[in-house]
Parts: sequence; structure tokens; C-alpha cells
Amino acid sequence: MKFGHFDDARKEYVINTPKTPYPWINYLGNEQFFGLMSNTAGGYCFYRDARLRRITRYRYNNIPIDNGGRYFYLHDNGDYWTPGWMPVKRELDFYECRHGLGYTSITGERNGVRVNQLALVPLQFNGEVHKVTVSNTSGAEKQVKLFSFIEFCLWNAHDDMTNFQRNLSTGEVEVKGSVVYHKTEYRERRNHYAFYSVNSPIDGFDTDRESFLGAYNGLDTPQVVEAGQASNSVASGWSPIASHAIHITLQPGEEKSFIFVLGYVENPEEEKWEAPNVINKTRAQAMIDRFATDADVEKAMADLSDYWNGLLSKYMIESRDEKLDRMVNIWNPYQCMVTFNMSRSASYFESGIGRGMGFRDSNQDLLGFVHQIPERARERIIDIASTQFEDGSAYHQYQPLTKKGNNEVGSGFNDDPLWLILGTSAYIKETGDFSILDEQVPFDCDPNNTATLFEHLKRSFYHVIHNRGPHGLPLIGRADWNDCLNLNCFSKEPGESFQTTANIEGRVAESVFIAGLFVFVGPDFVELCKRRGLDQEAAEAQRYIDEMRKITLEHGFDGDWFLRAYDHYGQKVGSKENEEGQIFIEPQGICVMAGIGVEEGLAEKSLNAVQERLETDYGIVLNNPAFTKYYLNLGEISTYPPGYKENAGIFCHNNPWVMMAETVIGRGDRAFELYKKIAPAYLEDISEIHRMEPYVYAQMIAGKDAVREGEAKNSWLTGTAAWNYVAITQAILGIQPDFDGLKIDPCIPKDWEGYTITRVFRGDTLNIAVKNPNRVSKGVQSITVNGQAIEGNVVPVAGDGGTYQIEVVLG
Amino acid sequence: MKFGHFDDARKEYVINTPKTPYPWINYLGNEQFFGLMSNTAGGYCFYRDARLRRITRYRYNNIPIDNGGRYFYLHDNGDYWTPGWMPVKRELDFYECRHGLGYTSITGERNGVRVNQLALVPLQFNGEVHKVTVSNTSGAEKQVKLFSFIEFCLWNAHDDMTNFQRNLSTGEVEVKGSVVYHKTEYRERRNHYAFYSVNSPIDGFDTDRESFLGAYNGLDTPQVVEAGQASNSVASGWSPIASHAIHITLQPGEEKSFIFVLGYVENPEEEKWEAPNVINKTRAQAMIDRFATDADVEKAMADLSDYWNGLLSKYMIESRDEKLDRMVNIWNPYQCMVTFNMSRSASYFESGIGRGMGFRDSNQDLLGFVHQIPERARERIIDIASTQFEDGSAYHQYQPLTKKGNNEVGSGFNDDPLWLILGTSAYIKETGDFSILDEQVPFDCDPNNTATLFEHLKRSFYHVIHNRGPHGLPLIGRADWNDCLNLNCFSKEPGESFQTTANIEGRVAESVFIAGLFVFVGPDFVELCKRRGLDQEAAEAQRYIDEMRKITLEHGFDGDWFLRAYDHYGQKVGSKENEEGQIFIEPQGICVMAGIGVEEGLAEKSLNAVQERLETDYGIVLNNPAFTKYYLNLGEISTYPPGYKENAGIFCHNNPWVMMAETVIGRGDRAFELYKKIAPAYLEDISEIHRMEPYVYAQMIAGKDAVREGEAKNSWLTGTAAWNYVAITQAILGIQPDFDGLKIDPCIPKDWEGYTITRVFRGDTLNIAVKNPNRVSKGVQSITVNGQAIEGNVVPVAGDGGTYQIEVVLG
Repeated sequence: MKFGHFDDARKEYVINTPKTPYPWINYLGNEQFFGLMSNTAGGYCFYRDARLRRITRYRYNNIPIDNGGRYFYLHDNGDYWTPGWMPVKRELDFYECRHGLGYTSITGERNGVRVNQLALVPLQFNGEVHKVTVSNTSGAEKQVKLFSFIEFCLWNAHDDMTNFQRNLSTGEVEVKGSVVYHKTEYRERRNHYAFYSVNSPIDGFDTDRESFLGAYNGLDTPQVVEAGQASNSVASGWSPIASHAIHITLQPGEEKSFIFVLGYVENPEEEKWEAPNVINKTRAQAMIDRFATDADVEKAMADLSDYWNGLLSKYMIESRDEKLDRMVNIWNPYQCMVTFNMSRSASYFESGIGRGMGFRDSNQDLLGFVHQIPERARERIIDIASTQFEDGSAYHQYQPLTKKGNNEVGSGFNDDPLWLILGTSAYIKETGDFSILDEQVPFDCDPNNTATLFEHLKRSFYHVIHNRGPHGLPLIGRADWNDCLNLNCFSKEPGESFQTTANIEGRVAESVFIAGLFVFVGPDFVELCKRRGLDQEAAEAQRYIDEMRKITLEHGFDGDWFLRAYDHYGQKVGSKENEEGQIFIEPQGICVMAGIGVEEGLAEKSLNAVQERLETDYGIVLNNPAFTKYYLNLGEISTYPPGYKENAGIFCHNNPWVMMAETVIGRGDRAFELYKKIAPAYLEDISEIHRMEPYVYAQMIAGKDAVREGEAKNSWLTGTAAWNYVAITQAILGIQPDFDGLKIDPCIPKDWEGYTITRVFRGDTLNIAVKNPNRVSKGVQSITVNGQAIEGNVVPVAGDGGTYQIEVVLG
Repeated sequence: MKFGHFDDARKEYVINTPKTPYPWINYLGNEQFFGLMSNTAGGYCFYRDARLRRITRYRYNNIPIDNGGRYFYLHDNGDYWTPGWMPVKRELDFYECRHGLGYTSITGERNGVRVNQLALVPLQFNGEVHKVTVSNTSGAEKQVKLFSFIEFCLWNAHDDMTNFQRNLSTGEVEVKGSVVYHKTEYRERRNHYAFYSVNSPIDGFDTDRESFLGAYNGLDTPQVVEAGQASNSVASGWSPIASHAIHITLQPGEEKSFIFVLGYVENPEEEKWEAPNVINKTRAQAMIDRFATDADVEKAMADLSDYWNGLLSKYMIESRDEKLDRMVNIWNPYQCMVTFNMSRSASYFESGIGRGMGFRDSNQDLLGFVHQIPERARERIIDIASTQFEDGSAYHQYQPLTKKGNNEVGSGFNDDPLWLILGTSAYIKETGDFSILDEQVPFDCDPNNTATLFEHLKRSFYHVIHNRGPHGLPLIGRADWNDCLNLNCFSKEPGESFQTTANIEGRVAESVFIAGLFVFVGPDFVELCKRRGLDQEAAEAQRYIDEMRKITLEHGFDGDWFLRAYDHYGQKVGSKENEEGQIFIEPQGICVMAGIGVEEGLAEKSLNAVQERLETDYGIVLNNPAFTKYYLNLGEISTYPPGYKENAGIFCHNNPWVMMAETVIGRGDRAFELYKKIAPAYLEDISEIHRMEPYVYAQMIAGKDAVREGEAKNSWLTGTAAWNYVAITQAILGIQPDFDGLKIDPCIPKDWEGYTITRVFRGDTLNIAVKNPNRVSKGVQSITVNGQAIEGNVVPVAGDGGTYQIEVVLG
């Protein structure tokens, strides 16, 4: 069942009922200020850090779900309603939500009044702009009242929801003209405040939540709105809010618009006050003035559109599959930007108060983002590498505000270092900017202890070599990519972290996954060595790679598929010998991506085992059989009910590894079949089962062992976005940035006739037409550039900003 | 304005509207299992630790406030409602809530159906019992449907509200017969589950929240209740709940009752399962069986009543002031029990996930509780002392589950050690049990490093002596009693803890308060030395006390009142020299309680200054003038808006110190006047201003500088309860446990004729009649015991379990 449709021309997803199976959200903002906004106007916003600079309050897992947002109540002669349906939930004559790239537009109509709420975070702007348009669609004059509503968070979202004995006494506001200023704790150590303005005179305001709502009223029945009369309350402690009241008279057919700005301002210490206890409003006024007229909003929308069109133009496909096109051209890169910006901090499943930027996460996220804004990827790589230790290990997470490593989680995830090589290589392949390798980068964020980024990569490479176990395979540490496979953390206490309770000597448990990853990314390190003239270094590294490949085949293959690991006792994990969890997806994907076992036919065997044992209608589950009880020696993975999350859920992040593996052995039909199983645009028709947004990936879909098979969770913030983007754009469609140019090596379903791709690469625009006259999956017969045939399948880069016609013939 | 009334005979507060100014709550449970319950059935329950073993979910600071609890929906022919009004909020024909001692009874009636919900935690029972009685008060047959509802918390209340990417996938239940079992994470490391049962067959159930409510419905409109039909949903992930559906037919005048048990069970590891993935229900069944019939509930209620009557009988007054009597006989000791049990963990202002047991808090709490159950006070004293360090300092907090000191907060609150002397002395004075001093007690919870409790007290005493500053006054450390006066924590970063960011060398800032406290409690230590035959030790300690008294007068008095402190720069705090914060309440109270300046007339001067500068209609504010800006050198105190909390709020905890100080100089009228200003029973008539429960103290009432002067916050969990109890029962009414007996030394308003008190002391029952024929405030003319005159004013203890008639004549 569908709850909306794609409007590809406008790059929007259009939702036509507020009663989606779960709130379907969008992200506003691209730089420092971000908002989450659902299809019923729920959500919240923050400046840079969702925990420390939360602007508006939001209650997760609330009843009803998604209660709280930027609401506009329309009072019409005693009746009142909200255009997004929630929170009042009065039946609407018309409802529509359009989630676009960086903006959301919600329209509701009832009884001859139409209200549209257009929300965006303009470029280079630390605030949300909401343009509200009220139209009289009836045949008679209408006198209506518009009430805005937002609830302020007292900045630190965690403290805000725990420390009531203090924070119910600290709330402070100022009201001046049509602007409410939220200044809690500004009197003391904060030099920032928030404000909520409207570009028109107001007929009243409220800033005290209880005065606006009534003590026992919900957001569905604010007493001020019911009465149609603002109370002009001034908050003192408790819960500061902002609400403007505007009385509007509309002739038939007439419409009026109002621009609300919800902004964030920092003042230098010496400019904090304009009078004792009166905040300096200069910067807020400048922000308000920037959005004085509808034309200002139109300009901001046009700028935003230009911005996104620019980013998306880097890779545009035209195929015969509109679902494929909308994923590749719009929604997948859009989600990649969001994951790059947010890491795993703020979604409708990530509460914004917990995890920092992941070392592993961020390196993977940038794989799907680097072509959009390479400069930001470059900066991120340096930030990540700065949290590395001298021995090549790294903080598993760091805080975006301070960029310091997160001590609570610490280090010891032994796959982490390798992702830095992968991320850096991806950046260089996209840009050709080898100079990044010469950047001086700190260890452990200590500016007095630095080395070149290349040296960091070397430490990453050799961290694996220096930490190998009894079989010569890499030691797993606290976990490898699968955070929930914890072979050195024997936890018996409820509530203990499986990842940080390392109570077992970690020199036995080994990871076949890390071995595969090493062989997969190692060649990039070898290539970088060579290009720095370090041939001996390169040769030595290559020997280690070859050795690891050999060891993996010798000790990491279980007859029909790759083993997952050896546990603390040296026993196999992910083997026929196991009672449960006999086969895992990760090593099959990564080892074949690395080319291990391809020549020997073991790669194909392993992928066939995946198909047979792990594949379902909704994607590939992580392991099988699911764990039905708790295994002390395996950790968190066995704590999930069967079929959910890492315990035999369809963990969408690693599905594209299998797609990519399939392309390694040339099975383009299989690769694309797997792609379609989890790509959200293909799931739109089963939204009642999938439940999550049909325009973005979710982290997990419940597997075949689950009660709720096919139901997704944890949408938006997942490495799934980047890896699926890489899988489809590079491995399947075959457009692969490489050190010396753009390699073209598709692996597609045999029945495809062809497709065209426009790729902006290192400043040049390449119009690539892929033709498949012989109906093959893989193999490039010829490539011409502007009609001239080239040798091999790497298109060299002119770098002159020109436009080139590339014709690729498969066969 | 009143919202109810006291029913003294039943020891209940009766609320006759659900729309109280704030939810007015009660506590169920006395030992291990506790519930918070509001007058509209809101709240939650937990086993021992409100953070780690939360049974039901609760959302703090929600909209509407207090949305979530143990609800019973009554569906009556399409109409549906809840007897506590919330959450459905359908108008009731009758509503009444009776908060009693350890139980709450809520009755609602609508359209000829009356529903009573009687909630209690029976003694020695790890669960809540809710007896629901449905009566047909109409003239016709009624066919109604009853739906129970509770929402489970996934045990760790903090994780439950932050870690959604995991915990929306882990929820698991079982349903068997009329019982819903909540077993999330039981498959792994937990050996405990919860259950919700009813003692009757059911007509359906629900365990999945969304199935019961609908995705976008609030608790006011559950779709199952609207439809009148349970969906028999079985939760798999998301949010497990428990709801029973019972169809009931009632003839006119007929009533039926149902007993619901919401219990908690721990199973030994080897008895966890009755079959694979099926939990062992034996222990739950035993609990359910215990409440099979109404008679079982009646018995539990009678037991509870006996229990409380026993506790309260230890101190019963009969005076001509019914408000005084109900405070002293019922509500103040009741609150003392709750604060002793909860410390500062779980109230409607304390979220239950934060603070542990305070070293200072718990010592003070037991002052008001020790006479009720001395054995529990004894145990607490040992627990507290076990977190002390060898140098006499101590962890500021410890965790009740582990009893280990809390590292995040650490030590350095320099008043902490002295409270241990006070608490221990209070225990010995109540019981005569000097043997506690010989208990071997660990330092820093290390069982291999112990000393006698007496040695701990000595370390406490000398910790002050060893940590004195330039004037010879005690160093303040991170803070003394006033956690918000931080003289060594210069914090410029928002969100930094003022208490733990100690960035200043702490050897300058001194506390006059600690000096006063030292002189106040020191003599108890001297006395304990003497009784152990340590005369030289006693003499030396006395010299230090005398010296401190002298130094306090020399460097701690500011002309008209006691100084508060010297800051890091050696500048005065709480002095005429200051621009703001010229006078503080704490040193005036404690120094005069210690007798400092009494002879010199400075005590009276200081208390007159309190009256002139700090007293208001609603009590005594903490300081004056309020701080209007942030003082880096004073810390958190200056961060609150003027008039709130420690910044010139009426901090009720320290008001009784001034009452007690007034009794030291004999001003009984003043003492009682101050008592009445904050004692909640006297504030019942201004409940619309005070807003908090009129039966318990709140931590704070907004002061004269506040916008909302007179409005209280943070009710229930505050040292206010214990200190006011001590002030009224000991200092004003004059019944003072002492080492050798019961000292009688009232200080009362001159116009009182007298009063009688029954005091159970060390097993004897003393019927004390205080007579005031000469209309004095203070001074005992004569005391007779069973008609025999005694010397002095200390009634010796026979300890024979007998009953004695004591007549006390003032004059």
C-alpha cells in the first residue's frame, strides 16, 4: 500500500495522508543548523550538536508518537485545526506533505481555509524559516486567527529531560514586538539565545507553556487556541514556549502570508547585553530582516534548489527504470548527505544525545558523499585521523563540537583503522588530490604529536599486521564492523556495555571479516606507497596482503562459505559446526569484494550459500540460524530476539557488500535483484509492511525469523545509504573513480539495453552512454571519448572543465 | 483556595478535584518496591532502584503533565472514561482521591457507574496491588467493559529513553491466562521479569502499545477502548504494554471487584526457564495467589494500617491546633519515611535516573526517621560511613544498589563528614545503642581496610581541623551544605558541573557555615569520647570546638550577622561589603543553633537581621539581595533567576534552622511563627499560589524577588522534612532524645496553655503533659514521672516497656 508518490520533476516525495505507518521525516539544513521535520510538522531543531545545542524540545517514543513540533493552529470561528493534522487531528478536507531537498511543505485545508507551511533552513543561516500562507477558499469573508507554537529546549537535551529540580526554575524569555527571545542561562555562562519572530504585527503572544495549553491539556487542545485569545504570558521558570497570535481577515480567494524565523544567535562576551539583563538583539534582528518579504523566502528556496541541483548533478543517470533513477539521482545521494552531516546522532530513532561521530561510520559515510562536496570530506578525514593513536588504533567515536575522542567508548574496535585507508583513498580517487597525504595530522588530538596522513594510513595498515591471532588472522578486539559480535566481552551483568566491558585477554579471538577488509583496502595502500616512490614499502605491504589472502582461504573458509571468526576459545563462529549462527553475511561480502577465493571458485560457492541460507523476500539476513539463546562468548548479537537487528535481521548496511561481491564474479542479474530488494523506492508499494519512509534506507528490516518480518526500523542514519550508493553507482552501473581517472566497469542485468550517466568528475562533465547490444552483464568491449577510442576502461581526466561524450559498449 | 481537605481520622488527604494546581502525588511501598501515584492515577513504579529497575514507563515534563500511569478505562455503551479523570478527561459526576499512608484510593463515577481504584504495595511484597471495584449506581442493568493499562519500561529508565535504535527491537512478552509477563532481555543477562495479572478470567488482552492505542492516538483515546474490543496483540519489539479486557454485567446496586497485581520477580539462574524461551512463572504465581480474594486485600490494608500506626505512635501530639497535630502526627513523619527511602531519587521533580544516596542528605534524612525504625537508620549509617575515605572526607553520593561511592561526583564537599557525627549521635540518643560505635566499617567500601565507626567519627571531626584556611575557619571545598555556593569552581563553560569542576586551589575559601556546624555537632563527639573513657581525646576535641567558636566570632561575624564565607580571593561573602548577597540564612541558623554569640548578644542580633532582611510572608529567603548577575567566584548560586532556588528562594530546608536558633534564645513565638509559614498544612488555603501538595514540604518556595512569589517546587524529596520535624518535635515542642534519656525543653508561643505528647522511647511509653500556667515560652519549672518529681529536665529511661505519666510544668 502506498501513502504518497514520488514527484521526480520537483525532487519531492508527496505524502497524501498524515496517517503514515510511522512519521515520515525530512531534514532541513546542510551546514550548522538542522531541523528534523515529519509529515505532520513534528520534530525539532538544533545548532551543530543535537545534544548540547538543542533549540526546541522533543519527546522521543511519546504517546502519541511524534507529538511536538513547529505547529500553526488555525482558529476559525470556534473551530480550530492544524494543517499537518497533528496535533489537533481535526479531519481535513485536503492534506498534502511534500518533502523536498532541504525543505518540507505541508498543506491542510478545512472548511474553506487553506494553510500552507513551507519550512526550510536557508543556506548560510542559523535558523528555520517557516512561511505560512493562509488562503480563503470559500465564497465568503473569513476572520481567522493563526497561533504559532514551539517549545524551547533548555539547550542541553539530556539535562533538559532529567534535571528537573534545577531546570524548572531557570527558564527565561524576553518579548519585544513580534519576537520571543529564549534566554535561559544566558545570564550565566551561555552566550547564545534563540528567538522566534514573525514579519507582521501580532495580536498577542504566549511564552509560558501552561498558560498557553492549560495544565492538563495536550497539544491537541491548547486553551489559548480554544479561546481564540492569547494570554500574553511571560515565562518564569517551568517551560518556556513561543506562540504568536495573529488575527486575519480574508476576502474570498484572498491569501496572506507570514514569515516566521526560529533562529539561533551567539554573541561575543563583550556584546552580550544591551542593558542590565536585557539581551543584545542586534544579530537576531539582522537574521529577521533577511526574511522580511515573500521574495526573500523565494530567493532562499531558489538558492537551496540551485545548491542541491549542483550537488546532484555530479552523478545523474537516465535509465528505463524510474525507481532506479530516483534513487540514484535524488534520494540516495540526499540521504548520503544527511548521514554525512548527522553521523548517527539525530533521527527519529537516534535521540541526538548519545553517540558522537564514529570513526568507522564517518569513513563509510563519506564514500557516498565525497563526490558532492569533496572539501568537506577532506576536512572530515583529517578530523577522524586526528583521533587515531600512535599504534594505529583509534577512538571509536569523537564529539563533533570538540572533535575530541570519546573516552567512554575508547578504542579497541580492530576494524576501525582500515576504514581510514578506504575513506582517504575514496577522496583521492574522486579528486586526484594526493596532497592530503602530506597533511600533518595529530595523534590523539595532540597538536604537539603529529605525523603525515600517509603515516597515519601506514599505522592503520600495520595495526592489523601487529595484531594477529593464533591462525594469523586479525584479532577482533572489542568488535569489528559488527558492533554486536563481542568475542572478548563476557558480560553477565544487565546494563553493562557489551562493547566496553572487555574482560577477556584479547589475543585469541580473530575476525575473518577484518582479514577480508584488509585484503580489500590493502591494495589502495600499496598504490599510495608506489605513488610516493616507496616501492619497497609497497612490496612489503603487498606481501602482507598476499599472505592474508592465503591465510583467509586456509583458516577462514568453512567448506561452503567464509567463516565469521574464531572466538576466545579458538572455536569457529559462523561454521557448520555451530548449532546456531552457522553462516554470516559479512565475510561472504567483504572477502569476495576483496577477490578472495574468486579464482578457486570459492567466492561463487560462498555467494550461492548466501542465496540459499540468508536471502529472503526482503533482503539478506545477517546470519542463520538466528540465535535463540544468549551466548556469553558472542556478546550482544545473541541478545536480540531472533530476526531483529544483528541477530538475523536484514541489516541493510551489508547487503550491498553482497551486491558488490556478485559484481566481482560477474553476476549482474543477482546484484541488481538484491539491490531492488532493499532500495526504498522499490518498497513503496509495501509501505504498510515496511513502514519506514519509501525514499530513504532504514538500517534494519526484520528478518525471516522475526514476528514482524519485513518491517523496517532505524531509518535515515545508517551506513546503508553510502554503501548502497557505492554498490549501485560504482559496482553495478560501473562508474568508478580511480586514481588516474574514471574507470568504467558495469555489471548489470543481462536484459538491460543500456543507460546514460552524466558524471561531473574533477571539474569535467562526462556524458556517458553505456550500451549493451550483446546483452551481457559484464565486460567492456570498447570506450570512446568524444568519438576517439581509448585503451582499457579508465577514462583519463582532462581536468579542463570541459564536457566529454563517452560511449561505452559492453560485450 | 483549597482543592481538598484533611481526613485526620483516616490519616488521609482527600482531593475532590482532579484539576489540582499540579499533580498531587503519594508513595506506595516501604521496603523494596515503590510506586509514585498521583491523584489522577499517574506515575510509575520500580524495584529498589528507580533507574535500573524501572517497572513501568513514565515521561517527565510531558504534555499534558502527568500523562501515564496505572489506568482503568471504563467502556459503557460507547462512552468511555477513567475514574481518575486523566487521561480520558471525560467529565465525572463524582471524583475523589484519598492519599493515605502507603495507599491511594481513587473513585470516579459517571452515568450510573462508579469505579474505585485502590492501590497499594503490601508489606513484604514486590509489587503493586490495584483493587478495582465497579458498581452500578443506576436503576438499570449495566453491561460495561473494563480495560486495564500499564506501559512497561525496559528496565533501565535512562537507556529506555535514549537508546531507541536498540530498544525498539528488544521488547518481549508472554501471555498466559489472565497474566501478561514482561520479559525483555530475560533471554540474556536479566534474571527478572514483571507481570500484570487479574484475579478473573479475561475477555481479551493487549500487549503491544500501538495495537492498543493506535499510532496517532493518545492515552485519552485508545482505539481498543473506543472500539470496546481488545485486539489480543502480542508485542514484538516497539513498546510492550499490558492491558486486560473484562466484560462485566451489573444489576442495579450490584458491584464487582477485580484484583490486579503488577509484580516483579527474580529467578535464580538455574530456575530461569520452564521450557526453551518460556519463563518460569512459579514465583509470579505465588504472588498472584496471595491476592486472590478481596479479603486478601483487606488483610493487606489492615497490615499496612497497623504498620503505620505503629510507626506513628512513637510520637503523637494532642494540641489545640489541628494543623500542628496533623503535621506532627501524620504527614511530617510520613514524608520523613519517604525521604529516608528515596533519598533524592524519584519524585515528580527527581527523575529517578540521576542522583544516588547523598552522604549529607541521608544523614539528615535519618534525623527525622530514626525513631520510627532505628534498625534501618543503623544500617544506613553503616552504609554511609563505608563510603568515607581514610582522611575523613567522603564520597558525596553512593548508589543504593551497589552501595559504592559515586565516582562521577567524587568527594570534596567539606561539610559532609560532620553530618555523620550528627546522624550517628541521633541514632544513639534515640536508642541508647552505643554498640554501633564499635562496628567495623570500611573506608572507601574496601572490606580489607576497616576501622570502628567511632574512628570514622574521629576522622570526620579532624577532617575539619586538618582543613582550615587563612582565618582558621574550615575550608569549604567544592561546596558546603549549599551545593550551589561554589567558591573553588570557576566555571565558564555552559553545561559544566559547578560542583565537580574544581579548578581553583582550594586552600583559601572558607565556610562560616561549616564552622557553625562544627561547633553544633562537636559536643556530641566530645560526649562520645567521654563515654568511651577517652577523656584526653574529649578535652582536646573540646579545645578545638572552643577555638572554632572564638574564630567564628572574630572572623565570621559581620557586625549585624554572621558572614557566609570567604571566597577564593579571601573576600567576604554574605557581608555588608557585598553589592548583592549581603546576608545568607545558613550561618545565622547554624551558628546560633551552636550557641555561638548567644552570650554576646550577637545571636539575637543575627536573628533580628534575618527577620528584617530575609523574612517574607512565605518564609525566609536564602540570601538578600538576590544575585542579578553571574559571579564566577560564587558558582551556581548566581545562575538562578532572582528569587528561585538557592538564589534568594525560600529554601525550606534551612528555615527550621532559624526556628531552632530562635528556640536557643528563647523566642518561642518567633519560632512557631516561622514554622507555620512553611508547614504545608498551614498553606492549604493558598494552594492556588503554593501549588504543591498541602500535606508535604517542598524544597523551595519562590522568594520575594521572584515573578511567581510563593509558588513552591520540588515537593517531597527534601531534607526539609527531617529538619522541620526536628525543629517542631524537639526544639519547639521540646521532646529531645538525649544520651541518658528524654530531655524535655520546650520553646513555644507564650499564649499556649499546654499540650500532651505520647512518646515511645526505647520501648517505654511516655505520656507527657506539658502545662504552661505562667504563659512562658521557655523554661521547665518541674517534671514529675508517675507523680514523682525528678531533678533537671532529662527523664530517665526505665526501658521496661512500661507506660509512664510525665507532667511538665513550664515557668
